[in-house]
Amino acid sequence: MLNSLDKHMLETVADMHQAPLGAFNIRKNGQGVQRQTTENIDILTKLDKPGIDVIVKPYTKGESVHIPVILTEENLNDLVYNTFEIGEYSDVVVIAGCGIHNNGSCNSRHDGIHTFNVRKGAKMRYVEKHFGEGEGTGSRILNPKTILEVEEDATVELEMVQIRGVDSTKRDTEIRLGKNAKLIITERLLTDEEQWAESKISVELNGDGASAQIISRSVAQGHSKQDFYFDLIGRSASRGHVQCDSIIMHDAQVFSTPRISAQHSEAQLIHEAAIGRIESEQLIKLMSMGLSEKEAEDTILKGFLK
Amino acid sequence: MLNSLDKHMLETVADMHQAPLGAFNIRKNGQGVQRQTTENIDILTKLDKPGIDVIVKPYTKGESVHIPVILTEENLNDLVYNTFEIGEYSDVVVIAGCGIHNNGSCNSRHDGIHTFNVRKGAKMRYVEKHFGEGEGTGSRILNPKTILEVEEDATVELEMVQIRGVDSTKRDTEIRLGKNAKLIITERLLTDEEQWAESKISVELNGDGASAQIISRSVAQGHSKQDFYFDLIGRSASRGHVQCDSIIMHDAQVFSTPRISAQHSEAQLIHEAAIGRIESEQLIKLMSMGLSEKEAEDTILKGFLK
Repeated sequence: MLNSLDKHMLETVADMHQAPLGAFNIRKNGQGVQRQTTENIDILTKLDKPGIDVIVKPYTKGESVHIPVILTEENLNDLVYNTFEIGEYSDVVVIAGCGIHNNGSCNSRHDGIHTFNVRKGAKMRYVEKHFGEGEGTGSRILNPKTILEVEEDATVELEMVQIRGVDSTKRDTEIRLGKNAKLIITERLLTDEEQWAESKISVELNGDGASAQIISRSVAQGHSKQDFYFDLIGRSASRGHVQCDSIIMHDAQVFSTPRISAQHSEAQLIHEAAIGRIESEQLIKLMSMGLSEKEAEDTILKGFLK
Repeated sequence: MLNSLDKHMLETVADMHQAPLGAFNIRKNGQGVQRQTTENIDILTKLDKPGIDVIVKPYTKGESVHIPVILTEENLNDLVYNTFEIGEYSDVVVIAGCGIHNNGSCNSRHDGIHTFNVRKGAKMRYVEKHFGEGEGTGSRILNPKTILEVEEDATVELEMVQIRGVDSTKRDTEIRLGKNAKLIITERLLTDEEQWAESKISVELNGDGASAQIISRSVAQGHSKQDFYFDLIGRSASRGHVQCDSIIMHDAQVFSTPRISAQHSEAQLIHEAAIGRIESEQLIKLMSMGLSEKEAEDTILKGFLK
C-alpha cells in the first residue's frame, strides 16, 4: 500500500525506515492506512470526527508512537483531531511528522489539532517534522495546533522542525504547566521563496516550581516572511526562559513579538531575541578553508538549525 | 510668583535650584509663568493651541532649555503641545520634567505632546522626570507623547524617569532615525500601590548606519501594574538593542511585549527582557552588614533605578 514516494516522505518526516517496533498510525491523503498497537499503547479511531485517540497506559516505559501524516496528491484539505492520553509516570516518545508532496496546481493542506493530557509524573518527548516538496504550483500548507496540559511533576520535551518546502504555515502551541512540571521546546524553522510562517507559542506557568525553556531558531531566505509570537505567563513561583534567534537573508523579513507577563512576585521570566545576517567572519573563515560562498553559507545554516 | 512648594517641585522634576542660565519656560497650573530666552534659543507661544515652539539655532553649542511643568491644584486637565526645532550641528540639553502635587479629591492631569525635529549632525540630550505627591485622594495623571525625527548624523539621548507618586501614566514615544543617526534611551520607572504605567517605545531604523540602544528598568511594588511595549523596526543596514529589566514585588504585575522586526537583511536587532524579584543573595549580604530588610531592599532598588 505504501509506494516509494510514501516511504521517502515517511523517512523524512518521521525517521521511519521500516515499520517501527512500537505503536504507529500512518495517515495518507486523509485516510488511515496502517496501524499497530501494543499492550501498553492503544490507538482508537475517533467516532465523532476525523482523528485518533492515543492512549498510553500509566507506567509505560521506553515505548514510542509514530503518527505520521503524508499528502501526495493535490487539492486535499485534510483536517484531523488527535487526542493523547499520556498515563501517569509513563515515559514515551511521540513522533508526529507531516509531509506534503504536491505536483499539481491546486493547494494541498493539512490541519492537525493535537491535544495532550500529560498526567502526573509522566515524561513525554514529542517530535514533529514538517516538510514539503513537489514540482507543482499548488501550495503546501500546514497548520498545526498543539494543546498540552502538563500535570504535576510531568516533563515534556517538544522538538518542532519545519525542514523546508512549506509554503504557508500557521503554528499554534498552547501549554499549561502544573506544579513542578517541566517543559523544553526546541523549534527550528526554515522558509524560502515566497513562503510565510507564523508560530505562536503560549506557555502558562500555573503551578509552583514549574519551569519552561523555549529555544527557537529560524532562517528566512528569499522573499519569505516569518512572524513569531511568544507569550510566557508566570502565575506562580516559577521560571521561564525564551530564546529566539533568526538569520535573515536576501529580501526576507522576520518579526518577533515575545511577551513576558509576571503575575506573581516569585515568577522569574527571561526573554532574549536576536535577528541578524550570517556573521561575515564565519563565512570568511570557511571560505579560506576552500568552501565556496554558497557551501560556506549552507554549512553555517545547517549548524544553526541543527 | 513661585512659592516654596513650586520650588520644591521644580527642584525634583528639573533640578532647578534657581533660575537656570540658559533658556527656560515654566508652566504652572496650565499657564506660562516665567520665560527666558537666549541669543541662540528662542521660545515662542503657540498661537493656534496651548504650548510653545522652542527654536535652537544651528551650531548652538553647550546651551540648555528647561521647560518644567508643575501642577499644584486639583481638578486640572492640562494639555500642551510643544515643538522643538534643534538646528543643524547644535549640541544642547533639554530638561522637561513634570510634577503634580494634588491635595484634593479630584484628579489632576497633564498631557504633554512633544515633537522634535533634530536636524543634521545635531546632538540633543533630553531629560524628563515625572513625579507626583500630595495627601488627597485625587489621582495624579501624566500622559506624555514624544515624537522625534532624527536626521542624518544626529545623536539623541533620552533619559526618561518616573520617580514615584504617579497614579496613572500612558507614555508613548515614537522615533524615526535617518542615516547614521544614533539613539540612546534610558527609561526608569517606579510604581506602587494601585498605580498603573504603560510605556510604548517605537523606534524605526530608516537610514543605513542608524543605531539605537534602549535600556529600560522598572520596579513594580504594591498592587501596581506595568505594561511595556517596544517596537524596534530595522528598515536599513542598522543596529538596534533593547534591554528591559523589571523587579517585581508584593502583588505587582509586569507585562513586557517587545517586538523586533527585521525588514532588511543587514538589520541586526537584539532584544533582552527579564522580570524577577530582588535576588535573595544580595539582600542577605546587605543585611549581614547591619541593614534591616527594608533598608537592604531600598538600597538595591536605588542602585537598580540609578
